[in-house]
Amino acid sequence: MGRTVTIYDSTLRDGAQAEGVSFSVEDKLKIVRALDDLGAAFIEAGNPASNPKDLEFFARVKHLELRNAKIAAFGSTRRKDLSAVDDKNLQLLLSADTAVTAVFGKCWDFHVTDILQASLEENLNMIRDTVSFLKARNREVFFDAEHFFDGYKANPAYAFDCLKAAAESGADCLVLCDTNGGAFPTEIHEITKRVTEEFSLPVGIHCHNDGGMAAANSFMAVEAGASQVQGTFTGFGERCGNVALATVIANLQIKRGYLCVSPEKLHCLTKTARLINEVANLWPDEAAPYVGRSAFAHKGGMHIDAVLKSPRSFEHIEPDLVGNTRKTLTSEVAGRGAILTKIQRINPNITKDSPETESIIQRVKELEHEGYQFEAAEGALELIIRKQLGKYRPLFELINFKIVGEQPYVAGRSATAMIKINVDGTTEITAAEGDGPVNALDKALRKALEVFYPQIAGVRLTDYKVRVMDGKSATASRVRVLIESTDGAESWSTVGVSTDIIEASWIALVDSVEYKLIRDIENRFRAYL
Amino acid sequence: MGRTVTIYDSTLRDGAQAEGVSFSVEDKLKIVRALDDLGAAFIEAGNPASNPKDLEFFARVKHLELRNAKIAAFGSTRRKDLSAVDDKNLQLLLSADTAVTAVFGKCWDFHVTDILQASLEENLNMIRDTVSFLKARNREVFFDAEHFFDGYKANPAYAFDCLKAAAESGADCLVLCDTNGGAFPTEIHEITKRVTEEFSLPVGIHCHNDGGMAAANSFMAVEAGASQVQGTFTGFGERCGNVALATVIANLQIKRGYLCVSPEKLHCLTKTARLINEVANLWPDEAAPYVGRSAFAHKGGMHIDAVLKSPRSFEHIEPDLVGNTRKTLTSEVAGRGAILTKIQRINPNITKDSPETESIIQRVKELEHEGYQFEAAEGALELIIRKQLGKYRPLFELINFKIVGEQPYVAGRSATAMIKINVDGTTEITAAEGDGPVNALDKALRKALEVFYPQIAGVRLTDYKVRVMDGKSATASRVRVLIESTDGAESWSTVGVSTDIIEASWIALVDSVEYKLIRDIENRFRAYL
Repeated sequence: MGRTVTIYDSTLRDGAQAEGVSFSVEDKLKIVRALDDLGAAFIEAGNPASNPKDLEFFARVKHLELRNAKIAAFGSTRRKDLSAVDDKNLQLLLSADTAVTAVFGKCWDFHVTDILQASLEENLNMIRDTVSFLKARNREVFFDAEHFFDGYKANPAYAFDCLKAAAESGADCLVLCDTNGGAFPTEIHEITKRVTEEFSLPVGIHCHNDGGMAAANSFMAVEAGASQVQGTFTGFGERCGNVALATVIANLQIKRGYLCVSPEKLHCLTKTARLINEVANLWPDEAAPYVGRSAFAHKGGMHIDAVLKSPRSFEHIEPDLVGNTRKTLTSEVAGRGAILTKIQRINPNITKDSPETESIIQRVKELEHEGYQFEAAEGALELIIRKQLGKYRPLFELINFKIVGEQPYVAGRSATAMIKINVDGTTEITAAEGDGPVNALDKALRKALEVFYPQIAGVRLTDYKVRVMDGKSATASRVRVLIESTDGAESWSTVGVSTDIIEASWIALVDSVEYKLIRDIENRFRAYL
Repeated sequence: MGRTVTIYDSTLRDGAQAEGVSFSVEDKLKIVRALDDLGAAFIEAGNPASNPKDLEFFARVKHLELRNAKIAAFGSTRRKDLSAVDDKNLQLLLSADTAVTAVFGKCWDFHVTDILQASLEENLNMIRDTVSFLKARNREVFFDAEHFFDGYKANPAYAFDCLKAAAESGADCLVLCDTNGGAFPTEIHEITKRVTEEFSLPVGIHCHNDGGMAAANSFMAVEAGASQVQGTFTGFGERCGNVALATVIANLQIKRGYLCVSPEKLHCLTKTARLINEVANLWPDEAAPYVGRSAFAHKGGMHIDAVLKSPRSFEHIEPDLVGNTRKTLTSEVAGRGAILTKIQRINPNITKDSPETESIIQRVKELEHEGYQFEAAEGALELIIRKQLGKYRPLFELINFKIVGEQPYVAGRSATAMIKINVDGTTEITAAEGDGPVNALDKALRKALEVFYPQIAGVRLTDYKVRVMDGKSATASRVRVLIESTDGAESWSTVGVSTDIIEASWIALVDSVEYKLIRDIENRFRAYL
C-alpha cells in the first residue's frame, strides 16, 4: 500500500452551504458517526461564528467515542481592525473546543484589496496573528489558503507570502483551495508541486466543481505531493458543490494504491454516501461514480451479455469493492441472462433453456411493447414471473370503483373514490377523498384491504412518477406510472401502463399491495413451502 | 480564437442507454433542432440495428433543414462469421442514409478473445472490411475505438494495430473511447498524445464518467491533440454517464480559447441543457457546472456580499456568458433581459426599469416557487405577461365540471366529463367521454367552446407531459403538466401545477385555448389595435 492521504470531510460545514441543505444537531451527530466509522481522519463540523447554534453540536459531539476522526471547527482569520484576542469570532471558534481548527485567509491580492479592503501587509498580519493565537491555545491549525490558485495566477509572490505567514506562525497544514472551482488539472498540478517543493509542511487540497473537474483536480494535487484531500462526502456544496470524497477515496485507493481509509472499510463507501444523502434529504445522484444506484447498471443487450461473461468487460471495478451492486436493466435490448437471475430467485430449478424462461421473456417483451418498462420496477417483474410460473393467485378481486373529480377546486379533497372488493367471498365497500383521483383511489383501496390484511397499514408509497410515452396523441396518450412503496424494511417498485392515468395507476397500486402480501406469506410460511 | 474542436453529441444514442431514458421520434427531432441551433457539428442519433424503430426517425430527420450539424448513425463492425455485405446490421446502418456513420470496433485484446471469441487477426479484418464497406458507399466513417485506453494499457501494439486497420481502410476520424470510464487524466493525456503523433487523421475522444473525471479527461485529450469531443449534452448515459458536452464546451471555449460553437451561441448552453433534460423527462442536476440552476447560487452571507461587490470574487465566469443567471438567497429568476424581450413583444414601450417589468418578474418568481417552469412554456408566459399588463380578459368562464372515472375498465371511454361554461352571458353545458379523466375533460371543454369559437376545432394537442415534482408524498405529490398545442400553423406550450393532476391539466388546457383565441383576435383586428 502506498502513501497515506488523509481525508478531511466538510459535509457538515461546506456541504451545508448547498441549496436546500440544513442539518439539525441530531443529523450532524449521525453523519459524524458514519464518517468516523468509515475512517475519515478529520470531520469539519461547523463554523461557530456564522452559525452560533453549532455550539450545541460541538458540546454534544465531545461525548461521542470516535475511533478515527478528529473534529474540526472552521473560522476565518481575525478581522482587520481587531486584535485576535478581541475578535469575537475567534473566541467562538475556541469555544467549540475542538482538537483541530481550520482558518481561512485570503491569498488573492484582488480579494484583499477589493473585497476585504485591507492592505496586502495587513492581511499577512491577520494570518500570522490568527495562526499564532490558535497555536498558543494548543489547537492543531490548518490554514485554508482561500482562492490560492486564482491568487497564484494573479500574483504568485503574494500567494506564497500568505502561505509563509501561516507556516512561520506554526500552521500544521497548508490547504490550497480552488474556491471558485474553475481551475484546470494541469494548473493544479503545477502550482501544487511548487508549494510541496517549497514547504515541508503537509499540504492539503480543497476543490470545488464549477468546471466539473474537482475529482481530477484533487487527484492531480495528490500526484503533486498533497497529502490531505478536503471535500464533502457525496459532493454537495455551494454552487456546483465540492469534490465528492467517495469518488476521491475510490479513485486513489482502489486504482492508485494510496491509503485513505482502512481497506476493510472500503465497502462502506456506498452505504455511507446513501446515508448522508438521506439525512441531508437530498435526491441522490443515481449516476454518481462508484456509489450511485446506476453506477453499475447495464442496459444495452451486448453490454449485459458481456458483463455476464466477464464483469470487467464493462465495469472499471468490481461493484462489491465499494459496497455497490450490479444491475442489469431489463429492457427490449437486454439479454436473456438478466431475466434468468430473477427467475431463479423464485424457482432455482429453472435454467436458461427451460420453456418457462422463454414464456416469461415473451411476456416481458409483449408488455414492453405496450410501454411497460421493468428496469426500475423489480417488484412488478417478480409478479409477472410468478404468474407465468403458476406461483400466484389473486389476493383480492375488484368488483368496481368509481371516481368523481370536480371543479370548483377544493384542495386536499378535489376527488372522491368509491370502491368495492371481494376477498374469499366477503365483500367490502368503502370510500375516501383525496388530492386528485389517484390519491383518492389509493386511499380507498388501502382502507378496503386493511379489513382483511391489517399489515397493509404499514405500507406507504414513497414515490410516484408519470411518464407520457408518446405525446403525439396528447391527453389520450399512453402513460406509464411508476410507484415505489415501502413497509419500512423493504422497498419495491411497480408499474402500470394505459391511456387512462387512473387505470395505469390502478395496475401499479394493485401490484404494489400484492407484492407486499406475497412477501409476507413467504416470510411467515417459508417452512411449509 | 484558437484551434477548432468539433462537438459530436450522442445524447440520442449513448444518452438513451441511461436508466429511465427513452425517446419518441418527436423527442428526437426536437433535440436535433436544439443541438443544430447551438452549433454541434455532429449528432449521433441512433443505432438502427439494435433499435429498428430508429429508422422512422432517420427518415423524418432528412426533412429538417440543419444549418450546422451532420447526422450520424451508429453501429458495430461486421459480425465475425459474415462478410460485410451479408451483415444485416450493416445493411440497417446504411438504410439510415446518413452522411456520417460511426462504427465501433474492439481494441482491447481481452475483449476480442474473451467476449467476441475471435482471433486478434479476425478482429482486424472485421475493422478493415467494415470501414472499407462503408467508405465504398460514400459514408464519412468515424471509427470508435472501443476500450481504447484499457486496450492500450493491456497490449499497446494491438490497440495501435486496430487504429491502423481503420486508418488504412479509409476511416475519417479515430475516436478513442474510455468505454469503462475509469481512466485517469494523466493516462489519457499520454496515450492520446502517442496516437496524435502517430496518425495524421483527426482524433476524437469519448469519455465516460465512472471515475468522475470525464470532463478533465476530455480536456486532457484535447490538450494532447484530439480535435473532436464526443459526449452527451447534459451527461446522461449508461452507468455514470458520458462527459457532459455543456461542460466541455464552456471549459474549452471560455477558458482556453478553443472554438467549439459559434461564439454568439455560447449563451444558449443553459437553455439547450434544460430543454434536453426536460424532453428526456429527467431531473436536471441543479449543481451541473455552468448550466445547473445552482451553478451560480450563493448562500453564504459573506459570499453574497463579495459577489455584489465584484462577481468574480466567487464566480469563475460571468453566468450570462452561458445564459445562466446568478442566484442569491431564494430568488429563482429567469433573467430580466430574457423576460423583457417577451414583454416588449406585447408592449414595445416597456423598458427594463418600468414598474411593470418588476411586477411581472415578481409574479414569475412566485409561480416558479410553486413549481411552474416557463422555459418550455412560452405560451403560458405570454399569458402571464398579458395579465400583468392588463392586456387580457377571460374569453370564457367555467361554472363547473365533474369527471367520473370507473372500473371495470372500458378502453376509450373509461371516463366521462360534464362541463358548464359561460361566454358573454350565454351558458353552454355539454359532456364527453374519453380515455381517462383528462382526455374526457379536454374533449368536453373543446366541445363547449366550439359553440362560441369555431376556430377551436382546428386546434389539437400534440404533446402532454407530466412531471411529478416531489415524489416523496407519492400520489398526493405536486405534479406539473406541460401541454403542447398546434393549429397547424403555429405551436405553443402551456403549463399547470397542482397536487391534483386534473387541476394541473385544466390550468394548462385553459391557457392553451386562450392563447389561441387571443392570437386570432390579434391577427384579425391588428389594424384596430
